[in-house]
Amino acid sequence: MRIGPYSFEEFKERAAAFHGYPAPGLVLGGYMVAMAQRSLPSGVLFEAVVETTKCLPDAVQLLTPCSTGNNRMTVLQLGRYAVALFDKHSGEGFRVHLDVQKVRTYPAIADWFLKRAAKAQQNTEQLFSEIRTAGDTVCTVAPVRVRRPFPGHARMGAIDVCPRCGEAYPKEDGEMCRGCRGEAPYS
Amino acid sequence: MRIGPYSFEEFKERAAAFHGYPAPGLVLGGYMVAMAQRSLPSGVLFEAVVETTKCLPDAVQLLTPCSTGNNRMTVLQLGRYAVALFDKHSGEGFRVHLDVQKVRTYPAIADWFLKRAAKAQQNTEQLFSEIRTAGDTVCTVAPVRVRRPFPGHARMGAIDVCPRCGEAYPKEDGEMCRGCRGEAPYS
Repeated sequence: MRIGPYSFEEFKERAAAFHGYPAPGLVLGGYMVAMAQRSLPSGVLFEAVVETTKCLPDAVQLLTPCSTGNNRMTVLQLGRYAVALFDKHSGEGFRVHLDVQKVRTYPAIADWFLKRAAKAQQNTEQLFSEIRTAGDTVCTVAPVRVRRPFPGHARMGAIDVCPRCGEAYPKEDGEMCRGCRGEAPYS
Repeated sequence: MRIGPYSFEEFKERAAAFHGYPAPGLVLGGYMVAMAQRSLPSGVLFEAVVETTKCLPDAVQLLTPCSTGNNRMTVLQLGRYAVALFDKHSGEGFRVHLDVQKVRTYPAIADWFLKRAAKAQQNTEQLFSEIRTAGDTVCTVAPVRVRRPFPGHARMGAIDVCPRCGEAYPKEDGEMCRGCRGEAPYS
């Protein structure tokens, strides 16, 4: 089964180039994203919401025009291995999740997904072989309607110069920038 | 001036392919990321922190192995056009910001950065021409030490199955998954 426009091997290579290594979750994620994308009417301007920070956001970025930097992909820390693609204007779309019931017939996928085996004991070859065989048959797709705006979505107001650090920042953040108000992670 | 391994035109093309269009902030961001990367000792395993959600995260993803899905890039909503690359182990690294003082000699960059002109009035051709000429000379680099962990960094604990939605979720999230606790954005 192809992963969007790519063969399994091609996608694995692209995944490795972008992500550093061909993570199993990223390859499975490719099938998930492709499944959601196929479900959308063609030509619709869509955005993505990803329910986990792990691997899956990169599948979205490899297969769709949605990215972290263009704000068409929102990552929420819901801890579920699921992604929704939805019409930017109506919010209507499709959510795909990796299905606990369906992975039962694939022992390596189930062990990996449910973290039943330590990473060192993981048989990576078998895992990829099962992923390749399973494709999106271990996923479930369902229609959703996405509520927006998401918390903390990109702001577009006026810019000021912070009196403390001298850098540009969104005026609506107040008298000084968030970095100088203690939110910067530098010591 | 090259943008990492790319010419200006090559990077603009890659930016368009990944981001949907060659956003000025993404191209400038390319110079910023390349500047930070050049400052690091070679061969160091590094991570990235980006202080804005706008465009700059995609420059990191295009030029480094750090991505949203591999958790080597953290995006904080500090509202500053700045990025830091730092040694994963020591936290030592370099932060580059687009400098309000230095952009003064480039009117189109200054207007765009400080949002002095409406987007419709923006002279995109001049803006790109100035970005190409300026390269990283409108940026300032400084050493930083990054404090971690960041809030909400990827969790690695045991997995359970949510009694409500039947999906896998991090056990440490409690009796049911965050989605079923009302954090899912679907109606």
